[in-house]
Amino acid sequence: MVEFIDGGITTPEGFKAAGVHSGVKYRSLDLGLLRSEVPASAFAGFTSNNVKAAPVQVMMRENSPTLTAVVINSGNANALTGRRGIEDAMTMKQDVANELNLDPVQVGVMSTGLIGRFLDMHKIKYGIHRASRELDIGRESDARFAEAIMTTDTIKKECAARVRLSDGTMVYIGAISKGSGMIAPHMKVLHGTTLSVVTTDAKLSPKFRETWQEILDDSMNMVSVDGDQSTNDTCLLLANGMAKGSCADDDPLFREALQAVMNKIARTIAIDGEGATKLIEVQVNNAATKEDARKVVKQVINSPLVKSAIFGSDPNYGRVMMALGNSGAEFNIEEVRLIIKGGEMEVPILEGGAPIFQEERAVEAVRMAMDNKEVAIVLDLAVGTESAVGWGCDLTYDYVRINAEYST
Amino acid sequence: MVEFIDGGITTPEGFKAAGVHSGVKYRSLDLGLLRSEVPASAFAGFTSNNVKAAPVQVMMRENSPTLTAVVINSGNANALTGRRGIEDAMTMKQDVANELNLDPVQVGVMSTGLIGRFLDMHKIKYGIHRASRELDIGRESDARFAEAIMTTDTIKKECAARVRLSDGTMVYIGAISKGSGMIAPHMKVLHGTTLSVVTTDAKLSPKFRETWQEILDDSMNMVSVDGDQSTNDTCLLLANGMAKGSCADDDPLFREALQAVMNKIARTIAIDGEGATKLIEVQVNNAATKEDARKVVKQVINSPLVKSAIFGSDPNYGRVMMALGNSGAEFNIEEVRLIIKGGEMEVPILEGGAPIFQEERAVEAVRMAMDNKEVAIVLDLAVGTESAVGWGCDLTYDYVRINAEYST
Repeated sequence: MVEFIDGGITTPEGFKAAGVHSGVKYRSLDLGLLRSEVPASAFAGFTSNNVKAAPVQVMMRENSPTLTAVVINSGNANALTGRRGIEDAMTMKQDVANELNLDPVQVGVMSTGLIGRFLDMHKIKYGIHRASRELDIGRESDARFAEAIMTTDTIKKECAARVRLSDGTMVYIGAISKGSGMIAPHMKVLHGTTLSVVTTDAKLSPKFRETWQEILDDSMNMVSVDGDQSTNDTCLLLANGMAKGSCADDDPLFREALQAVMNKIARTIAIDGEGATKLIEVQVNNAATKEDARKVVKQVINSPLVKSAIFGSDPNYGRVMMALGNSGAEFNIEEVRLIIKGGEMEVPILEGGAPIFQEERAVEAVRMAMDNKEVAIVLDLAVGTESAVGWGCDLTYDYVRINAEYST
Repeated sequence: MVEFIDGGITTPEGFKAAGVHSGVKYRSLDLGLLRSEVPASAFAGFTSNNVKAAPVQVMMRENSPTLTAVVINSGNANALTGRRGIEDAMTMKQDVANELNLDPVQVGVMSTGLIGRFLDMHKIKYGIHRASRELDIGRESDARFAEAIMTTDTIKKECAARVRLSDGTMVYIGAISKGSGMIAPHMKVLHGTTLSVVTTDAKLSPKFRETWQEILDDSMNMVSVDGDQSTNDTCLLLANGMAKGSCADDDPLFREALQAVMNKIARTIAIDGEGATKLIEVQVNNAATKEDARKVVKQVINSPLVKSAIFGSDPNYGRVMMALGNSGAEFNIEEVRLIIKGGEMEVPILEGGAPIFQEERAVEAVRMAMDNKEVAIVLDLAVGTESAVGWGCDLTYDYVRINAEYST
């Protein structure tokens, strides 16, 4: 019932966007502005890293239930910038508020880029001034906003969907995300900080917060490129209710649509992981608890040994079992089942705690399954009924090159 | 007062060793046997991975307070081998007991190598038979034992030391460790499993167990090559008391000597990490708790972003702060101090939560410090008095190559 359509963050009713060149970066677009016609219910997810960038600190402190505009700059993360960084993030909000005639508490702020450098507030002020004049709807505005926040990515992480709710209202969801992409040689970012903005014209109440967290936990929070969490990660959902209709908080159709959008974004981030050549999907079934299932997914997806084995199509499935053992999750080794899938192949591996095949030749099937652009690892822990799925990518020479390059 | 000397595991009084070719590997030595003249107090540390190899399961279940012999095979890890693997590990003990006329409970067993394959017990039995006839003291026996367990390493991780205890007794400590070295292309190991055997002729009582744990926590447990913990890791201390003298349990001189030996082994394992070109030492000071200090050390040392930055001498110190933030440890961001050391250089970085330098040029000093074979990262958390130190290595193209290579 969820229908993906060509669109972006201005596809839902009442959202306008702009992207401009402020001068923080040498040449490309580096400042994006989004505005809703009316105050939108705001639901945010922030990095749980305890070293938080200034805009994240400001957004968390204000925790505003509604937002009318969001400003995002790239080229400078405003992270590790002490008190001056906090003041600068506040000034960005104030400048937008002045331009758009809003209360500054109605303005969200995000940054991504170089860390440990103070923002040039003269340039930012100029950028905000220009962007506020260029706010518009349509695919070109989507594209300029996207470019302003996602220039380092190699894949555009944008999508839109529509769904008819239980009460008959047609609502739209638009999403844009940047992150984990290839880092341009002159940049010095902590890592591909993930910034996401999701717009919808559905109506949501503050109590949707809990559902939003669940949706994030099953999508964005199950993506890992290298296990290192940025100081700036922010994921923001804005619901302005302009599609009319009743509150969609408890409508399973809306939830399903939003989950589908977020899963799509999450997978794309993994595919575009730094240096990645393959998408790895890890599915854990029959875990004792949901938490256990997620722990195993993350341990497997973050293991450098698993990641490099998949890069090289090395049928070293023992590494998956090692990661399972290191996860701390409960499992029944006598009945654990491990399957590796790739392309048309589906290779069962374990039985009774030992590999099914003892011959070198049989291992060739595992190698062939791994030799695909998408490799799935399916683990059955045989102790419960909970499951989880997550996405990551292989560890490649390019990952090392990108992150080792002298980058100042 | 601790004096390092040329020696190995047969340097302490009453220990004999042998290394033979059993045929599990195609050509090189693959089975080592160690024997003490009298039963030795035994203290072990095992992997905390919940997928444990058969020999680890057997050793943990028996938990014998004394051991008289230890048998180690390489080429096959006897891991992921189910019930048959357990029987095979028990048979190895029984075979040694038969040859040396011991109770099987007096025999320790370890394995390292291929996983998911059953041992060829015919070959193992033959190897044990031969090794038991070749037990001897001296540097050649040390060398053959070492070769039998450490053929994949690129550096020999062996050392010996002597120390005069408070009661005037001169005692000797010998240690051998394998692990984390370069994996030969035809091998398929979980990762460089760490096996260590430490011998001493000092006298120790069962209550030394706690001290042994503390020494391991400050040495072997602070080494990380890739954060992935093997199914087979085992570290065994044997104390046969043949130097006479009183019990060394509480002698600070003995503890200091043993800690020095274990630290030396730990550093060497990090230097010989897969594909490593640099040793990274992380020192955390003024943490709220010892646990916090260790958590930060491990988070920094395991971060692929930190590791690849150091490989490329990329002065991306923000990544260290990101790892600190992800560690979950308490710190005072306003007073955290970060220093990067390398060669003769010592570069202070942070002040008041922001970098001291704001100019690109100043960052060059960080790059120069990183451009050394040993790089130290010193973090002062400014919230307590506890500290910890740990060792790791950089993430390189060779790490990816070694672990991605098709290896069956």
